[in-house]
Amino acid sequence: MNDVTDAGTTFRQRLDQVAADTERLLERLLAATPLPDERARPQRLMDAMRHVSLGGGKRLRPFLVVETAALFKAPRERALMAGAALEFVHCYSLAHDDLPAMDNDDLRRGRPTAHKKYDEATAILAGDGLLTLAFDILAREETHPSAAVRIALVAALARAAGLGGMVGGQMLDLAAEGRFDGGTVQTLDAAHVKLLQTMKTGALLRFGCLAGAILGEATPAQRDAVDRYGTLLGEAFQIADDLLDVEGDAATVGKATGKDAALGKGTFVSVLGLGGAKARLTQLVAESETALGIFGRDGDVLKMAARFVAERKT
Amino acid sequence: MNDVTDAGTTFRQRLDQVAADTERLLERLLAATPLPDERARPQRLMDAMRHVSLGGGKRLRPFLVVETAALFKAPRERALMAGAALEFVHCYSLAHDDLPAMDNDDLRRGRPTAHKKYDEATAILAGDGLLTLAFDILAREETHPSAAVRIALVAALARAAGLGGMVGGQMLDLAAEGRFDGGTVQTLDAAHVKLLQTMKTGALLRFGCLAGAILGEATPAQRDAVDRYGTLLGEAFQIADDLLDVEGDAATVGKATGKDAALGKGTFVSVLGLGGAKARLTQLVAESETALGIFGRDGDVLKMAARFVAERKT
Repeated sequence: MNDVTDAGTTFRQRLDQVAADTERLLERLLAATPLPDERARPQRLMDAMRHVSLGGGKRLRPFLVVETAALFKAPRERALMAGAALEFVHCYSLAHDDLPAMDNDDLRRGRPTAHKKYDEATAILAGDGLLTLAFDILAREETHPSAAVRIALVAALARAAGLGGMVGGQMLDLAAEGRFDGGTVQTLDAAHVKLLQTMKTGALLRFGCLAGAILGEATPAQRDAVDRYGTLLGEAFQIADDLLDVEGDAATVGKATGKDAALGKGTFVSVLGLGGAKARLTQLVAESETALGIFGRDGDVLKMAARFVAERKT
Repeated sequence: MNDVTDAGTTFRQRLDQVAADTERLLERLLAATPLPDERARPQRLMDAMRHVSLGGGKRLRPFLVVETAALFKAPRERALMAGAALEFVHCYSLAHDDLPAMDNDDLRRGRPTAHKKYDEATAILAGDGLLTLAFDILAREETHPSAAVRIALVAALARAAGLGGMVGGQMLDLAAEGRFDGGTVQTLDAAHVKLLQTMKTGALLRFGCLAGAILGEATPAQRDAVDRYGTLLGEAFQIADDLLDVEGDAATVGKATGKDAALGKGTFVSVLGLGGAKARLTQLVAESETALGIFGRDGDVLKMAARFVAERKT
């Protein structure tokens, strides 16, 4: 398998195309004109929501929705809608995580964070607005004509993003930093690091894959395969992230490195060691390829995505 | 019409019964045991979500769902589920509005606000978790067996709570206080006050009524009637709130009064005058009763609810 797909395009071209299509869609979804039952779209709020969402990122999560949906020949336009909802949830979480009360970050992708460019209240509201908009989008017929499919997407996103998924994971992460016990940093074992990261980062990546299967009305066996792939990919993503924090060059990564170790954070590298983390990453890529076995050659793009996630330098 | 309903109970008994049933349901929905696809329910997060949601309030919003659903003989258990989702959205908005970056309130219903009892990060995450949980609840079969009904609830709640509804209204409110223009308080006209309050407060109250109509699979004419009633009730609620701030006794109201005027806030009283606001309130109650005309005697409880909202002293 090389990185040229059946369509004759490279993996990177495919990824970039989804990113471009997603950017255009996010812009449309954040247009100034109110929709039915919206009384107004206040300008400062919309500006902040656009600042948080537009002009950046690889759009990996929408890519997973689009390429998983493609396994089942589900229309690309629908997958882009679900991908946009997922991306808005990802962006809201960054805006809230960056707040002074949370990680207190001034820069994100080389630009001021929402509370630096605007103010804290606006950053909080922009996040709240993006999270709510995500469910608005999933509820639209443009996302899928079947109400059963749309409500399955809502159910899966709420579960992935909520108290038992992303929000809960952020809570565990803050607790591990010793934020609530007089500053005592927790010493995490491997199981706790995996739980925390599965919730904080993995759940949304897994949803990206599940969404494609839901849109494509996959069989239970197909859905299980995609679920397993998404779970493995989520863990691989986080290990690669932890490795970048240790080995990456700040200029290339685009954010400060060595930060996790400085904070005493429990990461996969801290509990598995550098060699152990790299070995686990290799194993995860292999297992994710195996999980896609039932799709034959159709699974090649997602296999490339797993390698891309594992080997990325930014 | 006196305040005794057909069932022989008083309006207040009916309201209290919904509040008691809602309290029990919210407790169950916030239980410690994770649901499928929830990896864990972190204790500090759950404690904060419970602190924000349990043990307080008249539960007016769930009451509107239950009593509107009753117009259409929709099962009460389903209405309580949709009412719980709505109440969680209301409670999340209070937790975020109380934050130091927003209204900076230390007390709510005589108890410390979430960021005082816990910390700002936990208060933000508790709000995020409650908002997400609301959509999780609406997506469950327990709320309604029909996917079409459930997705209609999701669509309506997202629209009411989002950037063109509640979140947008809070943004306009902060802007009116002069938060973003070097402290210059905006002088609002009546139309701007109405827009702001329709979004910030009215949209969720209206959703309470719409939710009952959606659950009851109302005809378009019935839905329009309920929609109109909910819109009028929302405005009446806010005028009563503004009057309480001017005329209420802090000990009875349970929070500081005179605060809006001190902040230079544009309220219905400030733009209509005290007499004008009272006259408008009387008119709104009469119009809301007219809106319910097509339901005959079945509409009596909701008529009492409009009078209750207009005449409440807390």
